[in-house]
Amino acid sequence: MTSTVGQVIRCRAAVAWEAGKPLVMEEVEVAPPQANEVRVKILFTSLCHTDVYFWEAKGQNPLFPRIYGHEAGGIVESVGEGVTDLKPGDHVLPVFTGECKECAHCKSEESNMCDLLRINTDRGVMLNDGKSRFSINGKPIYHFVGTSTFSEYTVIHVGCLAKINPLAPLDKVCVLSCGISTGLGATLNVAKPAKGSTVAVFGLGAVGLAAAEGARIAGASRIIGVDLNSNRFEEAKKFGATEFVNPKDYNKPVQEVIAEMTNGGVDRSVECTGNIDAMISAFECVHDGWGVAVLVGVPHKDAVFKTHPMNLLNERTLKGTFFGNYKPRSDLPSVVEKYMSKVQ
Amino acid sequence: MTSTVGQVIRCRAAVAWEAGKPLVMEEVEVAPPQANEVRVKILFTSLCHTDVYFWEAKGQNPLFPRIYGHEAGGIVESVGEGVTDLKPGDHVLPVFTGECKECAHCKSEESNMCDLLRINTDRGVMLNDGKSRFSINGKPIYHFVGTSTFSEYTVIHVGCLAKINPLAPLDKVCVLSCGISTGLGATLNVAKPAKGSTVAVFGLGAVGLAAAEGARIAGASRIIGVDLNSNRFEEAKKFGATEFVNPKDYNKPVQEVIAEMTNGGVDRSVECTGNIDAMISAFECVHDGWGVAVLVGVPHKDAVFKTHPMNLLNERTLKGTFFGNYKPRSDLPSVVEKYMSKVQ
Ligand SMILES: NC(=O)c1ccc[n+]([C@@H]2O[C@H](COP(=O)([O-])OP(=O)(O)OC[C@H]3O[C@@H](n4cnc5c(N)ncnc54)[C@H](O)[C@@H]3O)[C@@H](O)[C@H]2O)c1
Ligand SMILES: NC(=O)c1ccc[n+]([C@@H]2O[C@H](COP(=O)([O-])OP(=O)(O)OC[C@H]3O[C@@H](n4cnc5c(N)ncnc54)[C@H](O)[C@@H]3O)[C@@H](O)[C@H]2O)c1
Ligand SMILES: [Zn+2]
Ligand SMILES: [Zn+2]
Ligand SMILES: [Zn+2]
Ligand SMILES: [Zn+2]
Repeated sequence: MTSTVGQVIRCRAAVAWEAGKPLVMEEVEVAPPQANEVRVKILFTSLCHTDVYFWEAKGQNPLFPRIYGHEAGGIVESVGEGVTDLKPGDHVLPVFTGECKECAHCKSEESNMCDLLRINTDRGVMLNDGKSRFSINGKPIYHFVGTSTFSEYTVIHVGCLAKINPLAPLDKVCVLSCGISTGLGATLNVAKPAKGSTVAVFGLGAVGLAAAEGARIAGASRIIGVDLNSNRFEEAKKFGATEFVNPKDYNKPVQEVIAEMTNGGVDRSVECTGNIDAMISAFECVHDGWGVAVLVGVPHKDAVFKTHPMNLLNERTLKGTFFGNYKPRSDLPSVVEKYMSKVQ
Repeated sequence: MTSTVGQVIRCRAAVAWEAGKPLVMEEVEVAPPQANEVRVKILFTSLCHTDVYFWEAKGQNPLFPRIYGHEAGGIVESVGEGVTDLKPGDHVLPVFTGECKECAHCKSEESNMCDLLRINTDRGVMLNDGKSRFSINGKPIYHFVGTSTFSEYTVIHVGCLAKINPLAPLDKVCVLSCGISTGLGATLNVAKPAKGSTVAVFGLGAVGLAAAEGARIAGASRIIGVDLNSNRFEEAKKFGATEFVNPKDYNKPVQEVIAEMTNGGVDRSVECTGNIDAMISAFECVHDGWGVAVLVGVPHKDAVFKTHPMNLLNERTLKGTFFGNYKPRSDLPSVVEKYMSKVQ
């Protein structure tokens, strides 16, 4: 591997030439990492809705050609100037959002929304020189959310790489870099259900299943899975859900159904759908006095959250979270450890 | 005083015979306290908007004749069966909401919204027998929020009485039983600003001034008072406000003005207006990543709180509070002690 250090690497990548058109396997050139950058050999990568959403590029300013991909696991090939936290051979998870460790957000115990490296879906270049590290015959191919893992090699800002236990199987833990940690952290870091409490999880996709798993780890006594698709319930059982509600089965709002099931409301709810009605229901189904609702799903850009302010004055709390409030570099390694030790 | 125990007491009270008509000083009969009730000699009482609001009785089912008043200080005259926490001679503050110490809310560390004794503006009778303790020539005169302090003697559920330091001047501390504790607690118990943080207070009436005072006690470095009435700013300075914004002075939303003044938003905001636009501004002016907004004001019944869900997903928290999250019996005595020791 050392032979490639400082050299351009030629490798294969799945390139999106145009919005909505099939990706094409191409040979690309990957420039060496510059200051605060790391070149990573990607061993495993998975596909997330977010890749598809920006590939379809409906109603956005499309930036093409581009290399998608942001849930992956890899090994450091070489590091640029000033990188001291990582060295060749380290096992890493690229993350679509970063942690500079210097800004007000990184210094806050509560926030993970780094000023420098917060997710940016519009930018297709590296921060250091405003240019791409990918090219084909000299023509630049753009980056996506700073990761572009649909390539055998990619260049990533050091702040967007979590250094993980080298014993962790990269084919498994690669999915921890996005939706799974988002759902798990939403419950464990933000909703924080007490042992024995009741939790509702809206949406039982990957994110919601991880949120349910978080509730199970926290020792919730009842975990109510809510989805419009009853086929999700079987899967959700494996992640700790104990009861299921399909809003379509009732002719009253699902928040009322849940309030009746739980003597006034659940202690915690976690919304993992992206649907605005589910967000409102998730808020209104928590118990007055102490209930906390956490929003995770990414809403439509014109969506409006509406509720009667009395629902708040009755001492409910409404929060949102981004990436489960995990700081990518500081916290993600511990999520991998949770997997490794099969923490119950 | 002992001569009156178990007897009907005749005394003077300000009776509201009809909605919006001047109160009339009458001689009323006050029956002895029944189980879990206490008869209190009221020494001082103040007037709150809530009294006026329910006296005007616009758009409500008016219950008349009635005795208003809920911010007061008095001395226990006699106690009913089962009352062990209070005895004749104890100094007390009546509170419009109560604490039974038995329900899920009273047992929760977070809630003060007692199932049994939570504020009820419709009920005009005592819980024990569904009857009033006030009468004039046998005709019942109804209670208001369980306190009815516009009477020389009144009967109150033991759960709605805070036993306070007998050295506290009742003419001063009587105002602690409503708006002042509401504002103070909103900041100290719910917003919980860290030392050195920035706080915006919307509305500089009695409640907002107390919220500002809470921020001062907590050691906030900047306390931004926001009011449509600039005459309030002079008063607010005495309660710790350091800067002022009148939304009318700008042609952009006040949340943007505050975000510019504070490099992205305040750490905490407390809304004390009851105006829905102020509620939305108070939420949207907190910093992403860690900002917490607390709603205190009682909104119009048709008001709708609206915001884009991204404001939440960017890790802002929205909460509401009732009576500053103070439990009347457990916590109010300590607010009186704060006054007594002039805690800074
Ligand atoms: N997947 C990620 O990596 C990731 C990361 C961060 C945030 N998010 C956001 O979290 C949300 C969930 O992501 P996902 O990957 O699990 O999505 P998904 O599409 O796999 O699952 C969403 C589930 O929600 C259900 N649903 C939709 N509307 C509903 C409603 N009104 N009531 C109840 N259930 C409803 C759907 O039937 C589906 O099962 C999305 O908004 C996504 O943008 C995802
Ligand atoms: N006073 C109480 O005992 C008590 C107790 C609990 C809750 N509350 C609620 O708290 C709120 C405040 O009570 P108060 O007694 O201080 O009222 P107040 O009327 O004395 O003060 C409210 C202040 O808010 C200002 N205001 C109104 N709309 C505004 C806006 N859009 N932006 C900025 N400022 C605005 C007004 O100019 C006024 O100075 C009310 O909704 C009340 O119902 C009051
Ligand atoms: Zn993803
Ligand atoms: Zn940062
Ligand atoms: Zn009042
Ligand atoms: Zn109670």
